[in-house]
Amino acid sequence: MIRFKCDYSEGAHPKVLETLLQTNTEQTVGYGMDQYCIKAAGIIKEKIQRQDAEVHFLVGGTQTNLTVTSAALRPHQGVIAAYSGHISTHETGAIEATGHKVIELPSSDGKLTAWQVEETVKAHYSDENHEHTVQPKMVYISNPTEIGTIYSKKELTKLSSVCKENGLILYLDGARLGYGLCAEDNDLDLPTIAQLCDAFYIGGTKIGALFGEALVVCNAELKKDLRYIIKQKGGMLAKGRLLGLQFISLMENDLYFQMASHANKMAMLIKEAFIKKGYSFLISSTTNQQFPILPNDVLDRMKVNFEYSYWQKVDENKSAVRFCTSWATSTEAVKKLIEEIEKW
Amino acid sequence: MIRFKCDYSEGAHPKVLETLLQTNTEQTVGYGMDQYCIKAAGIIKEKIQRQDAEVHFLVGGTQTNLTVTSAALRPHQGVIAAYSGHISTHETGAIEATGHKVIELPSSDGKLTAWQVEETVKAHYSDENHEHTVQPKMVYISNPTEIGTIYSKKELTKLSSVCKENGLILYLDGARLGYGLCAEDNDLDLPTIAQLCDAFYIGGTKIGALFGEALVVCNAELKKDLRYIIKQKGGMLAKGRLLGLQFISLMENDLYFQMASHANKMAMLIKEAFIKKGYSFLISSTTNQQFPILPNDVLDRMKVNFEYSYWQKVDENKSAVRFCTSWATSTEAVKKLIEEIEKW
Amino acid sequence: MIRFKCDYSEGAHPKVLETLLQTNTEQTVGYGMDQYCIKAAGIIKEKIQRQDAEVHFLVGGTQTNLTVTSAALRPHQGVIAAYSGHISTHETGAIEATGHKVIELPSSDGKLTAWQVEETVKAHYSDENHEHTVQPKMVYISNPTEIGTIYSKKELTKLSSVCKENGLILYLDGARLGYGLCAEDNDLDLPTIAQLCDAFYIGGTKIGALFGEALVVCNAELKKDLRYIIKQKGGMLAKGRLLGLQFISLMENDLYFQMASHANKMAMLIKEAFIKKGYSFLISSTTNQQFPILPNDVLDRMKVNFEYSYWQKVDENKSAVRFCTSWATSTEAVKKLIEEIEKW
Amino acid sequence: MIRFKCDYSEGAHPKVLETLLQTNTEQTVGYGMDQYCIKAAGIIKEKIQRQDAEVHFLVGGTQTNLTVTSAALRPHQGVIAAYSGHISTHETGAIEATGHKVIELPSSDGKLTAWQVEETVKAHYSDENHEHTVQPKMVYISNPTEIGTIYSKKELTKLSSVCKENGLILYLDGARLGYGLCAEDNDLDLPTIAQLCDAFYIGGTKIGALFGEALVVCNAELKKDLRYIIKQKGGMLAKGRLLGLQFISLMENDLYFQMASHANKMAMLIKEAFIKKGYSFLISSTTNQQFPILPNDVLDRMKVNFEYSYWQKVDENKSAVRFCTSWATSTEAVKKLIEEIEKW
Repeated sequence: MIRFKCDYSEGAHPKVLETLLQTNTEQTVGYGMDQYCIKAAGIIKEKIQRQDAEVHFLVGGTQTNLTVTSAALRPHQGVIAAYSGHISTHETGAIEATGHKVIELPSSDGKLTAWQVEETVKAHYSDENHEHTVQPKMVYISNPTEIGTIYSKKELTKLSSVCKENGLILYLDGARLGYGLCAEDNDLDLPTIAQLCDAFYIGGTKIGALFGEALVVCNAELKKDLRYIIKQKGGMLAKGRLLGLQFISLMENDLYFQMASHANKMAMLIKEAFIKKGYSFLISSTTNQQFPILPNDVLDRMKVNFEYSYWQKVDENKSAVRFCTSWATSTEAVKKLIEEIEKW
Repeated sequence: MIRFKCDYSEGAHPKVLETLLQTNTEQTVGYGMDQYCIKAAGIIKEKIQRQDAEVHFLVGGTQTNLTVTSAALRPHQGVIAAYSGHISTHETGAIEATGHKVIELPSSDGKLTAWQVEETVKAHYSDENHEHTVQPKMVYISNPTEIGTIYSKKELTKLSSVCKENGLILYLDGARLGYGLCAEDNDLDLPTIAQLCDAFYIGGTKIGALFGEALVVCNAELKKDLRYIIKQKGGMLAKGRLLGLQFISLMENDLYFQMASHANKMAMLIKEAFIKKGYSFLISSTTNQQFPILPNDVLDRMKVNFEYSYWQKVDENKSAVRFCTSWATSTEAVKKLIEEIEKW
Repeated sequence: MIRFKCDYSEGAHPKVLETLLQTNTEQTVGYGMDQYCIKAAGIIKEKIQRQDAEVHFLVGGTQTNLTVTSAALRPHQGVIAAYSGHISTHETGAIEATGHKVIELPSSDGKLTAWQVEETVKAHYSDENHEHTVQPKMVYISNPTEIGTIYSKKELTKLSSVCKENGLILYLDGARLGYGLCAEDNDLDLPTIAQLCDAFYIGGTKIGALFGEALVVCNAELKKDLRYIIKQKGGMLAKGRLLGLQFISLMENDLYFQMASHANKMAMLIKEAFIKKGYSFLISSTTNQQFPILPNDVLDRMKVNFEYSYWQKVDENKSAVRFCTSWATSTEAVKKLIEEIEKW
Repeated sequence: MIRFKCDYSEGAHPKVLETLLQTNTEQTVGYGMDQYCIKAAGIIKEKIQRQDAEVHFLVGGTQTNLTVTSAALRPHQGVIAAYSGHISTHETGAIEATGHKVIELPSSDGKLTAWQVEETVKAHYSDENHEHTVQPKMVYISNPTEIGTIYSKKELTKLSSVCKENGLILYLDGARLGYGLCAEDNDLDLPTIAQLCDAFYIGGTKIGALFGEALVVCNAELKKDLRYIIKQKGGMLAKGRLLGLQFISLMENDLYFQMASHANKMAMLIKEAFIKKGYSFLISSTTNQQFPILPNDVLDRMKVNFEYSYWQKVDENKSAVRFCTSWATSTEAVKKLIEEIEKW
């Protein structure tokens, strides 16, 4: 059985593990105040070209999203997100559990537009009784999105402008940020993101770490007392150095981006194979997630040797499924998959 | 200026005030444990034909909705509601502030269908990772809805069946219940509602009381410790008798329904006048809220002497507005409005 | 049976009811935006000599306390209160339900001292891992306290200074404020309180209103978006004018203070009678609540004709109980009670 | 510098790391549904002799505590804990942030007694207005406690009985459980704990794992939908196998208990050295945390080469400090510390 089900099927890239092994018996202070976390934060601040940013390391994405939201919003404020956004659909109401509404907007490509955000804010304030509705205060986007699409520099710039004009916080969920930044049609980079967003995170879990997300806070107001809230939400790792160490490994020699590029390359090979056979896609993705629409009988046959994620029913005979690659996806595995595709 | 803006522009029906005056110097225990609350609860239990029900009196609707939801749900559970539902749009995220997601479903007539609810539950459990999404556990409906429509007995029966089959709690927001039960095309009554719903409230604020909603809990599981939660949410009135007394007045001689019938009658006169002049409506309503679609210039002229609620833009030249009647709407006021309509 | 059980046994002072009656059929806008609320707010701002203050009217005390706290604090912050404070013990965890810890300090007289607050803040910041503990951000006091004692001007000034020096919000629960300000040994007044506190409320429910508390917000930072949070917590009364109207009545001709003075006078008569007979008190109170320590057999006999609140066991043979007076306490009732006391 | 500051200064026991390395490239499903988690749960269920128990693996202690509490309590319920309990003082109000009050009781030895719990419950229900106070529903204890003391079998049995009689959930925080079970004066074991407690966790972070706590749920009612709540609170690790794998390593050949015994042995050597020199202790501990009371000048000298935790001021000249050992504490390090002690 060859798995293309998700990008967190294996452990960590060997270099990451190596670093943990080498430092295992060293004694450090806890809770992310150690030298490794400080060093990792320094590397990231350099890469994003913002020495004024604050970097915190958390274990997982849901935890990071709920911590930032809880820290950023007052009780009557909500966060705008695409209906397909991770916080809208796949975090068991984690945001609502901190007391805040996710204001869900429709989106066919997983992205929010500046126009949508602007209209939502306008609609709120034009309501005579706007105090009876949740005040939009934050915008949540993911890049790449949950369906593999990416924001262009132009799109993100517009979104950022609208947010600034309307006093909204722009937060980017970068669970798969590497895959996005290494996509062939990408024109964003870390410094630009750090310029345009109030906060974002660089995802480690899905790109080569055992676990770990580097939360970058650029907006000064959001920095205040963030460590208190990380602790309160259960997100402060006792042996915090494990996070710092992993991010040092990921960032050194751009291992993070090398892994992402590899995964994207593998994904493009798969994409091509599907295209060649005339299959269409739920959405056109240039990152490590591909969503071909396949006949159900083809899916049944494929199931025998390959694991993929079921995504959604398209019609009686066809379904969209997800194939996911990662740093650990081998050319052999992809070759076998392509052979299988070509067989049909 | 004659106001048709809402159904809570005036104080209370004179009979309600009279009762408060008569009993003003009596000494009673506080917090709704007095003889008047007990008596009012008794009258209601008789009217709904369920001696096993529990009746609590709260001051307002948002308070009632958030208290019931908070009491009924575990942290990972959410409440299904129409996108236009009061809890979805007009309570400043009160439900989310208690930690729960409102799972919003589209609806063109303000109502939820049994089918929609069933599909939502199915979709949840068919997700391989359903633990990553909010568990649907409660269904919130309002009758009449926020746009004046009502549920038929058949519709509510189906909805109730689907809820029972799927272990969902069915909760009916009856802020305007009287108007619904007195509509010409209504076939529901209090005993049927008490049979089909796990909990519901009989709204006083919008039908002749100074304030007050009678929360009826039929499902035994929901009764447990409810008074604790009412207190915690700030909904336990010190001089609770004020609520009991008002509901005694409302229920005696069916004053509640007399007032609702009057308001509906006034609304039907207004409706007719608009129809006669060829205007269409956002939705066909047989209750005290009417939503005609009117040319903007007509609205401008009308504004001079009449107050209504702006509802939504329909196109460049037309908007939907709301005209609302109540127990206090006089035939004279309606006559003047009709004259105005006929003028255009 | 003559009741001295609490100060909310009756309805409202006749003048309050009269105002409601006179205005009953007037049409006003809802949610506290009407002329009466504006007028009442104006009167209060004049009385406290702060035109910059914001006044909101809420139905009850628990609701007011939880709304202010929720609006004022970020998630990791807590509110310091006496262990005997209302929010600590008698609001079913309403503050915690909004996500915040009540940091409870011991107090034998129901009051907090400036020193206690200062030590608590110091202890927090001197902890190397202070981010692992709740950050003190607000101080809750009640005046009079839950056991009838009052703050002197000197005490409140000191407390206020410590709060300002440490960036803490000082919030005063004035559920019985009138009784405090009319106590014979009181040296505080409304302008001083408005100068020293960031927010406080003038309690109506326990001093002559049907219900209602006037929340005064002096600190500019606390004003922001407060109406949203009042709505979210279920505290925005649809017919908000009922609150405005009542406070106009209470404030006109200082009815509020006349009622409080009367209640205090009645309480002093009762106090004297107990003293004459040689009974001691749980605490010395100069306000409308008196806490004599009485032999259990005396209490048993008294129970036949008089209602009081059981407070706490003192030893095997004696208990502290509470006698409460109000605007509605008649000289006759007090006379009868004194005769009973003198009998033993 | 030799560190005795805490029991999480190093990484993990080499055997733990070895397992991670060996399995690194294997593909497994995520979120704790993999074979390793299932195997680890099986081993634990065997060790506790309860096949009906449910085992969940979480990353950290605060997360585990807040998840269990949130899952177990209804909104109006609170958890009883010692004032010195971890949830009372060192989790930044994590419990309150889920909406629940920690009902803090005094304790000089860090433990709760059955009597205290019983009195608290009695006091609640004997209050005429008990609905105005938080309902005690859960009891939180830690074993060993935050100051190193342990519960005897008799104490825990009594506590468990009182909880059962009063419908309370007994939850044991076992962040350092191994150290407790390996203490020379301990008479508890895992099966007994699993019999007496409704839920508890076996702490990995502080005893040899990189991170990880094994939450054991014995009470059937608490099991329901727990995974939803783990996900919601951000506690569901994507590569969940990392937790399963570590606990397999810890449990195989009782490595967990070997490590704990070693740490305790080291702690006893340190304890003895302090006793020999005539120093007293804050509390008598037989586990890996020792709290000697030392003259401030001695502490100053010691600081040069040894790291310890400052605990509390005892008087002007003396302070209590904490020395902590772990699996990684070497005999050499302890020898050096003892030499230092003997020097004074």
